[in-house]
Amino acid sequence: MAALNGAATDLKSTFLRVYSVLKSELLHDPAFDFTDDSRQWVDRMLDYNVPGGKLNRGLSVIDSYELLKEGKELTEDEVFLACVLGWCIEWLQAYFLVLDDIMDGSHTRRGQPCWFRVPKVGIIAINDGILLRNHIPRMLKKHFREKPYYVDLLDLFNEVEFQTASGQMIDLITTLEGEKDLSKYTLPLLLQNSKRGIITSGREDGKKLSSISYATTDMVACALLMSGESLDNHIDVKNILVEMGTYFQVQDDYLDCFGDPKVIGKIGTDIEDFKCSWMVVKALELCNEEQKKFLYEHYGKADPAIVEKVKELYKALALKDVFSEYESKSYEKLITFIESHPSKAVQGLLKSFLGKIYKRQK
Amino acid sequence: MAALNGAATDLKSTFLRVYSVLKSELLHDPAFDFTDDSRQWVDRMLDYNVPGGKLNRGLSVIDSYELLKEGKELTEDEVFLACVLGWCIEWLQAYFLVLDDIMDGSHTRRGQPCWFRVPKVGIIAINDGILLRNHIPRMLKKHFREKPYYVDLLDLFNEVEFQTASGQMIDLITTLEGEKDLSKYTLPLLLQNSKRGIITSGREDGKKLSSISYATTDMVACALLMSGESLDNHIDVKNILVEMGTYFQVQDDYLDCFGDPKVIGKIGTDIEDFKCSWMVVKALELCNEEQKKFLYEHYGKADPAIVEKVKELYKALALKDVFSEYESKSYEKLITFIESHPSKAVQGLLKSFLGKIYKRQK
Repeated sequence: MAALNGAATDLKSTFLRVYSVLKSELLHDPAFDFTDDSRQWVDRMLDYNVPGGKLNRGLSVIDSYELLKEGKELTEDEVFLACVLGWCIEWLQAYFLVLDDIMDGSHTRRGQPCWFRVPKVGIIAINDGILLRNHIPRMLKKHFREKPYYVDLLDLFNEVEFQTASGQMIDLITTLEGEKDLSKYTLPLLLQNSKRGIITSGREDGKKLSSISYATTDMVACALLMSGESLDNHIDVKNILVEMGTYFQVQDDYLDCFGDPKVIGKIGTDIEDFKCSWMVVKALELCNEEQKKFLYEHYGKADPAIVEKVKELYKALALKDVFSEYESKSYEKLITFIESHPSKAVQGLLKSFLGKIYKRQK
Repeated sequence: MAALNGAATDLKSTFLRVYSVLKSELLHDPAFDFTDDSRQWVDRMLDYNVPGGKLNRGLSVIDSYELLKEGKELTEDEVFLACVLGWCIEWLQAYFLVLDDIMDGSHTRRGQPCWFRVPKVGIIAINDGILLRNHIPRMLKKHFREKPYYVDLLDLFNEVEFQTASGQMIDLITTLEGEKDLSKYTLPLLLQNSKRGIITSGREDGKKLSSISYATTDMVACALLMSGESLDNHIDVKNILVEMGTYFQVQDDYLDCFGDPKVIGKIGTDIEDFKCSWMVVKALELCNEEQKKFLYEHYGKADPAIVEKVKELYKALALKDVFSEYESKSYEKLITFIESHPSKAVQGLLKSFLGKIYKRQK
């Protein structure tokens, strides 16, 4: 582990080096006597599923931690630990993607077949997903057991997973065939959806949160814990992060409908997929009876001509202006919240994140 | 929660009352804004999957804790907390069963269709499994967050889950079609299998560990933590529990082959299923070249006549005697271990468990 944070070392290669260390520790975990076959299986499964994404989520932990340290150079040990937390988030993401792909019957992920579609893997992928999830407490225990915030880290990862799985449940049961019911698409449901852990609900192959595949709350929370801040004492930080998450989600819903497919890198399908999007919730709020009848009859249909008509209705309701106003107001509100936080370092971190997502086009 | 431990109250009905309390807490968890539909979904999913088993695992936590208290009457609070831990173990079991049934393509569980076979559930069951798993830290956090052993409980449940998932992986990849290889069935692999968390690898519909569907290590570990014992300081307790788990598994393998189907309540299929059983591992150790050739050619075949021939080979190798000797020696070794433990209460608890499994016929 020489010169982890040497000036000439680029962060991503440091991060990838820590991946090799962590993988090797897991493959030689003294708590479990692997057979050769099972060690090879885990080795291959990890390489296939964990490091192949853009790694923005994991890298953000290190960025966040650096911001919190306000320019002081990180020690080698601090860089390593921030990388471990970054990888825990990547592992969590991999866990959800492996299982989501099975539930969605997806075919590809990050430019290769989904793990469960690989020959001989199949439904064993469910257990591999569980293994990925179980690696997180192994890594935390090995590297953080003696830290005063160890129990907070365990709580945080449990909380994020709980929120993600609960949000996923709502998504799965509201889009069940035969159960589709537009009258349930109201602001409370929407807000609920947007409150999920953001790292994990992001998807990378053309679904929700694809445009920026990293986000705020969980990386920031990890960095805060490492820097000695408690999340509970600063209930305001948590509130700001939730508010930012909602803002991010509303942007995503808007871009799915009116974003430039060339810029966001995908063609939105929220209307076809009967998604509980901010767009349709706002439309239902603002429309007259005739327009409402139209939505009830046509929302969720795959016909491109109908999708176009729904978009025309959105335009007629001036949803572009409604969104712009929402965006400005959210920004002002968030800035006011952030500036009321006692720590300048925390303010800097939160503003940096807000700057990255404000008025984003992708 | 009136008179939880009133003398006239039978333990099982107390235990079930605590289930209702826990379920209600989870359904009204302030950390998540359920929609009506999603609350109903979780309600039904819990009732379908959690309390329908024999509940021996959960009840054992309370038994164990009582033994550790050496006859002192438990306070209402202690009974309640022991019940919560008991339910955490039942939840963990439900989580693994829901997912295992999908992986095995099973049809029934506890006398009803497997959860994923229920109309409208289907592959959503994967997410429900994850939710079950996530409920455990919710319950622990709500009821144990302020206890000095809270972090040890989190570690324990993580450890059990990790061991179970890792053991399950070995099971899944060693029985992969086209990869079957008897030369890998050696004592180290067998010991590995038997080291899994016992609560969770037990299955109730005719597979491994069906005969006594409760077992030792994890319930005992929960009770020890609650009573203020640390598992790490008493490495000997952990070793004894692992040793007992191995003994239990070897018994199970023996009974699968030579137990009375009327007594154990199922017809064993380890030979047909190419299982890495203690029987075949011992047979491979003791056989001559000709017998080895026979095993390589016939182990894992579904033909009843061939299964019978494999059993005859086991008899010819005197595996019944080998097992009896193993059983006596294990018992002596365990008793010696147990009696060297400094606490009489812990000794009593461990002996009580050993007494329940020694020379069991089912």
